[in-house]
Amino acid sequence: MGAPPRELLRRDGGKIVLLVMDGLGGLPDPQHGKTEMEAASLPHLDALAARSSTGRAQILDPYLTPGSGPGHLSLFGYDPQRIDFGRGLLEALGSDYPLAAGEVAARGNFCTIDAAGLVQDRRAGRPPDAECKRLCEKLTQHVQLDDADFVLLPGKQHRFTLVVRGNGLGHHINDNDPQVEGKPPHPFAGRDAASEKTAALVTSFFEQARQCLRDEPQGSGVLLRGFSSMPDIESYDERYALRAAVIAIYPMYRGVARLVGMNVLDPGTSLPEQIAVAQREWDNYDFFFLHTKDPDTAGHSGDFAAKVSALEAIDQHIPQLEALLGTGDDNVLIITGDHSTPTIHREHSWHPVPLILQSQRCIPMPTPFHERGVMGGDLGTFSAQDLMGLALAHAGRLDKFGA
Amino acid sequence: MGAPPRELLRRDGGKIVLLVMDGLGGLPDPQHGKTEMEAASLPHLDALAARSSTGRAQILDPYLTPGSGPGHLSLFGYDPQRIDFGRGLLEALGSDYPLAAGEVAARGNFCTIDAAGLVQDRRAGRPPDAECKRLCEKLTQHVQLDDADFVLLPGKQHRFTLVVRGNGLGHHINDNDPQVEGKPPHPFAGRDAASEKTAALVTSFFEQARQCLRDEPQGSGVLLRGFSSMPDIESYDERYALRAAVIAIYPMYRGVARLVGMNVLDPGTSLPEQIAVAQREWDNYDFFFLHTKDPDTAGHSGDFAAKVSALEAIDQHIPQLEALLGTGDDNVLIITGDHSTPTIHREHSWHPVPLILQSQRCIPMPTPFHERGVMGGDLGTFSAQDLMGLALAHAGRLDKFGA
Repeated sequence: MGAPPRELLRRDGGKIVLLVMDGLGGLPDPQHGKTEMEAASLPHLDALAARSSTGRAQILDPYLTPGSGPGHLSLFGYDPQRIDFGRGLLEALGSDYPLAAGEVAARGNFCTIDAAGLVQDRRAGRPPDAECKRLCEKLTQHVQLDDADFVLLPGKQHRFTLVVRGNGLGHHINDNDPQVEGKPPHPFAGRDAASEKTAALVTSFFEQARQCLRDEPQGSGVLLRGFSSMPDIESYDERYALRAAVIAIYPMYRGVARLVGMNVLDPGTSLPEQIAVAQREWDNYDFFFLHTKDPDTAGHSGDFAAKVSALEAIDQHIPQLEALLGTGDDNVLIITGDHSTPTIHREHSWHPVPLILQSQRCIPMPTPFHERGVMGGDLGTFSAQDLMGLALAHAGRLDKFGA
Repeated sequence: MGAPPRELLRRDGGKIVLLVMDGLGGLPDPQHGKTEMEAASLPHLDALAARSSTGRAQILDPYLTPGSGPGHLSLFGYDPQRIDFGRGLLEALGSDYPLAAGEVAARGNFCTIDAAGLVQDRRAGRPPDAECKRLCEKLTQHVQLDDADFVLLPGKQHRFTLVVRGNGLGHHINDNDPQVEGKPPHPFAGRDAASEKTAALVTSFFEQARQCLRDEPQGSGVLLRGFSSMPDIESYDERYALRAAVIAIYPMYRGVARLVGMNVLDPGTSLPEQIAVAQREWDNYDFFFLHTKDPDTAGHSGDFAAKVSALEAIDQHIPQLEALLGTGDDNVLIITGDHSTPTIHREHSWHPVPLILQSQRCIPMPTPFHERGVMGGDLGTFSAQDLMGLALAHAGRLDKFGA
């Protein structure tokens, strides 16, 4: 499982297109017994499935519900349970900040601290976004670190991301958030010498922030958690000999793709525009990752009809997507999700995700594209971490093992 | 996965017959949508499948295309990705040379080397086989090694196998083939003391060969690669408590069977003769491995009709094969492939291989014997490395685990 033996990789072969329909899978609605995919009219996806390999991708262990980061890493062929993958990193990548090696990121909250140093409100009264931005700018102006600098990325309400930049900084530092109100923030400590250095810097940041913000009635302090750095993982080029590009509208997904060395392309604002970008850049890359968010958003909303509509809207663009592959014998198209988001569940779930793999070397079964249809597919239920290997095999990019 | 716990093995129980139809699985032909197995008329195999366990054997990781060596080792229940299994060994075994422990084999090419010591033609103009034989004989007569001797096995065109025999010889030696023309051969070096000893011997072999062949217009030197020895793996007797025999017409498959300690029987020249050999030797062995090459050969040729014919020809002999089992309650018959060789692909592929397991303890599904039929079989898609354990269980050769 995981990466194919490196000596079998070929640099020639077909191109691979992966469309992730975020939160694709669902569950039967108790009112009528159909899932969102079963209730939707998906003529193009059904026709594609009937001449493709199909099955269900198990994203993590069969009982684990993936977050978006682990969901995508698993589809990309990495083991998310073995990658040191902190919240601060996700926040930084989600803010489109290209975290460099050696930088340490943490998720921050503005909070309210009283004169005795106790946290009175962990979220500083949930200020408007503009207020968060103002507080970040104030800190940027007044706080100075020794031999290091920092960047603040304002977020929604009380949330921001802190990035500390310096030499030899570790990220094994505890959170200072006491998690309950009426207690003081924890002091920072590092688990090793490099992290001690970072702990000293963020202690200084914390103390200067208290001084600088002491007159703010809400937002007189900062809580920091999830200290993390870029993990040391192989790029797509190293792992698969693929020049890879991401075409995703939401920053979070560009960020996860950047983690594995994909080049970020300007996605436009809709799926047909994303497909047009892939068409334009066709000769420059071997692998294209396209991401569309709507099924997940609808799933979270709990609105069954909205998820059906989101799926049907995507189905309209499948012919344009298929046209990318042209007549190239070895080109491969994969359509799946990063996890299921059933409307009746209103959250991500652990269920395996329906998948289509189209190439010239499939054993199609006459199955429609929905949760129960693809159970009869030739791929069965398989580990998402094997998907990239399968894609490489179908694309003619893997040599034979042994003579 | 792999070997069952040794303390559960029984020396009594039924006999196990494994027929490997080399390159069995295929893919749908785009013209009519049927695979070779689907297009073939296989009445005996279909009838057998409908009263047997069926499924698909995954030979290696689901995206890896097995060579014949790894394909068979996996069916035999070994992990080919963990066995040090060099090209020289395969060549020696493929020449029916029973490589002994401590002998080192390498694949050789006659090449043409100019006066400056540069390789002008890595294949010496692809001489006729008889010419290769003559050059081998010339070297055998004139080259002498200190404290060691050697055997040369002539092959097709420029190819031969060198076996070096001596005491304390290692096989961790680089290839001397520069891979491009216009460069000198690499000097040999060993990675450890034992391999250094071998490196010195093959350096002497190389230099004497140059001297001896200096007047040959084509074939004035030798290139050697894939140095290897017999790997240290358990025999069938140690691993499964089975007295095993191979009945295979092609030397390569006898060689792989010899690797795991199977006894080599004279196979005759056709499948019915192979089955007759098994009948004759029935009382002397617990396990018979029969190999037939034709489906693979037809797959490589890209001739759909030829593969259909090859399958239909084998089907004619299935009643004779089944008759071997007689009325023995615990006897087991397995029919499968070592990998797929789809005609449209003209090469081995990564797709799982259809499989029949016949015993008195099956849960048959009414499935015909082809790629899509056996997807509905009771064994599902399972690792080939579990096949021998299943066979032992069905043969009543495995005790209960725990009380």
